[in-house]
Amino acid sequence: MEKSKFYHAGCAVCKSAEHDIINLIGADNVEIVHIGNDRTRITEAEKAGVKSVPALLTPNGNVLHINFGASMDDVKG
Amino acid sequence: MEKSKFYHAGCAVCKSAEHDIINLIGADNVEIVHIGNDRTRITEAEKAGVKSVPALLTPNGNVLHINFGASMDDVKG
Repeated sequence: MEKSKFYHAGCAVCKSAEHDIINLIGADNVEIVHIGNDRTRITEAEKAGVKSVPALLTPNGNVLHINFGASMDDVKG
Repeated sequence: MEKSKFYHAGCAVCKSAEHDIINLIGADNVEIVHIGNDRTRITEAEKAGVKSVPALLTPNGNVLHINFGASMDDVKG
């Protein structure tokens, strides 16, 4: 199965959701992308439809916004 | 692994998220609960911390609110 991508920005809500997602789908099935640290990937996330973090991009291209940590504008500062 | 519970109310956002969650974690690992139809379980969902649907209750008791379909007040009508 193609990997999902979990976009987050290090916030408490993000970390909690990251832990849950890894438990649910397995660390091998998800790439964790910290767009607060790796800012070169913010555009990629936005193009995929990520409006806020944490968010899970599924292999079929759907974005699941999970709870609410920060908007993309917050991440971009 | 104890099952997760996916609470939804039949809305389009709910159905899309249900499809994604089943693909990600497997139909055997999640109980699908339609609280729009089975209203006796609304209280259970609220006690677990569900504020809106669709939402996934993980085996360790965390609630992941996924995108936004309807508030619990909307579901209760």
